[in-house]
This record gives sequence, structure tokens and C-alpha cells, in this order.
Amino acid sequence: MGDKAVILLSGGLDSATTLAIAASQGYTCYALSFDYGQRHRCELAAAADIARAMRVAGHKTVGLGLDAIGGSALTDNRIDVPDHATVGIPVTYVPARNTVFLSIALGWAEVLGAQDIFIGVNAVDYSGYPDCRPEYIHAFEVMANLATRAGVEGRPVRIHTPLIDLSKADIIRQGTQLGVEYVRTISCYNPDADGRACGVCDSCRLRAAGFKAAGIDDPTHYQSG
Amino acid sequence: MGDKAVILLSGGLDSATTLAIAASQGYTCYALSFDYGQRHRCELAAAADIARAMRVAGHKTVGLGLDAIGGSALTDNRIDVPDHATVGIPVTYVPARNTVFLSIALGWAEVLGAQDIFIGVNAVDYSGYPDCRPEYIHAFEVMANLATRAGVEGRPVRIHTPLIDLSKADIIRQGTQLGVEYVRTISCYNPDADGRACGVCDSCRLRAAGFKAAGIDDPTHYQSG
Repeated sequence: MGDKAVILLSGGLDSATTLAIAASQGYTCYALSFDYGQRHRCELAAAADIARAMRVAGHKTVGLGLDAIGGSALTDNRIDVPDHATVGIPVTYVPARNTVFLSIALGWAEVLGAQDIFIGVNAVDYSGYPDCRPEYIHAFEVMANLATRAGVEGRPVRIHTPLIDLSKADIIRQGTQLGVEYVRTISCYNPDADGRACGVCDSCRLRAAGFKAAGIDDPTHYQSG
Repeated sequence: MGDKAVILLSGGLDSATTLAIAASQGYTCYALSFDYGQRHRCELAAAADIARAMRVAGHKTVGLGLDAIGGSALTDNRIDVPDHATVGIPVTYVPARNTVFLSIALGWAEVLGAQDIFIGVNAVDYSGYPDCRPEYIHAFEVMANLATRAGVEGRPVRIHTPLIDLSKADIIRQGTQLGVEYVRTISCYNPDADGRACGVCDSCRLRAAGFKAAGIDDPTHYQSG
């Protein structure tokens, strides 16, 4: 058994690839998902399916009432998800989301005795999300090692971001080599009740362009076409 | 109306004092509580009562399934709360709790357009909690200003810790001057069904000693005595 690692698993393409990378590096993987009032709840079913298919050592879904504080098109029904490319920080940005997710991962890592946390953030396609940048991840790691029993006792936590410099095509190529079944993943901001992708939101566009650039058939189930 | 601030409000003595201090500094106060599977759930009722009594501009309670990751006597029924003073990091330490709470406060501050967050951490009586130390708070602030839209756009967030260097007696003196009604607060790790304090846990001992040292009558309802 390798060292334990906590992997943030959303049900999307990036986090599934991140999980495959952590497993390929020999870590015993514990996947962590969040039920945070997201509109696209079928991603939780996808996360559970991926965790099972990739035979993780454990998978927890933590409930998180972020809808109480609102502020994002992904949790607040009064804000529309745009169907066009955006500039700057998009309305789909959930305030402090990665910070909240990493914080809970930090807590679980401490309970498990794990020193390694994997998150599938990407600075190439991050579309203006401040909490996907390397300098943010570094600052989180510094903070984490002052926050916890492990850090205080000399067992530092490491935040791994294996996708941070990769293009979507590179991510898909690497995941495909590692056996990720992308048909199980959901990236769309506006999926229908059957979990089929809209094909027009920012996230769908990035994903479709990634498969095309990688020269790999796109297995995504789209709503029409 | 003063600038908006988010205040972490647990229902305990320290956070009620922190709220009174923020209000006395002219902030328009938004109180934030968490339903995180804590055993001592009457503290949520106390938080709501304090928020009402102190006429905050808003009060949210965010659900947080920390019991899914376990690891603390405060959320895990299989770990006993000690009835004696402890050394080192106690079992009542909830993994990464302040980091999780501050992260969600950061998200709400961003939604509100607030740059100020208050937390009642205390480095004097912190009994070995790593996330109550000034160096941790500073590292969180650095991280927060890389994590958020506000930080990126030049409106930095400040984490205020007005109690960090105060003794319990000083906290109680200051709160009493500001009109905090401590009878509404609950500090005990093992309260009974009516919210009455056990009088013997670490938190009860610190609180009782604080009232004594401050020379102020202790209004706490104890289970017997």
C-alpha cells in the first residue's frame, strides 16, 4: 500500500484525470466530493461512478450549504449561466470554492494521516478563476502547514496540481493513456436531467476543443446533434 | 452604515465578544454560524439568540458535513470529551476547522462586498490548537488575497482577531463593558439537553476561571451545584 492521498473529485474530466495520475504515482487514493447546492447535481453521481470504477480506497461526499451564501450561477438559480465565452472572472466562479474544498480535504488528510492532497486546477483554461493559479496554491500550502497538527508536528502537507500547466488536449491524452473512461465524466454547466451536456457553455466548449486537439474521439453524450 | 464585516459566531463567549467589538468599531455586522455535526447543538440556538439580541444586519447558518470526515470528540461520538485539563493538541480539536470556517466567511465576504472578517481566536487559552496562532492567521490572509476576485482586483481582505492576545478575564471585562449578555452564550463541550454547562470540561474551566479573575459574577447556568 502506498502513502495515502486525498483527491478532490468533482465528477468532471480534470479531477478524474487527477485521480488517475495520483493512482499511477502509487498513492492509496481517498476521493472527496462535495454536495454544495450545485445545480448540476448529476456530477455527484458521476463522481461516485468514477470513484468506484477507479477502485479508490475510500470516497466521501461532504454536504456543504454554500447556497446559503449565494453569489454564483452554479449555486444561485437567479443568476443565468452564460452560453457564450466570457472574459475576466466569470459568474460561474463560486466564491472561495477551491479554498473551501481544499480546507476540508486538509481536515480529512489529517484524520487519515495523509500528507498529500491532489486538486485538478488548471491555470491554462482557468478562464479568470483566481483560485486556480500557482501562487494561490503555494499560499494555501504555506497556510495549511501552520493550520494543522501535522504541520506543527513536522509532517508537512503537499498540495499537488498535476494539471496546472497542461492544455485540455494534454490532460485528455494523459488521462486516456492512464485508462480514464471519460464517458463517465461530466463537465457541462447546464446538463439535462439525464446528465447529457449542452455543448454550448464555456466548460463544454473547452472540453470539446480538447478532444478535437488531442485527436481523440469525444465520448460525451450531448443533448442533441 | 459602516463598512460590512463578516463575524464568525459560534454561540460561545469569545465569538459573542468579537461581534460586540466589531459592532463597536462601526462595522455593519453579518454573523456566520456553522451546523457542522457538533454534538453541542444548543450552541446554534445560542448563536441565533445572540445575533438577534445584538441586531446584526444578517445571520446565516451554513450546513457543513464535517462529521463525514470525523476525527474530533466534538463531531465523532466514538471519541470521549475529556473531563480533565489536557496538554498538547486536544481531542476536541476539529481538523482544519478554523480554516474551513474562515474559507466560507471569505466566500460570503466576497458576495457581500465586505473586506473585513472577524474571528474570536485566542492564542492565550488556545490549549494547543494550531489554527489559533497569529502566524496561522497571517498566512490565511495572504492566501485569501490570492484566492479571491476582491484580492485580485485590489480590495484586500483583512482577518481581524481582536481577542488573540487577551486573557479570558480581559475578554469578559471588555465584553461586559460593551454590553454582551454572557448568559446567552454557551462554552461547554458537554451541555445537557437544556443547554446547561457541565462545569468540568476544559472550556467550562477556562470560562469559570475567567469570570472569577475578572471579578464579574458568572451568569452561566450549570447542570448542578
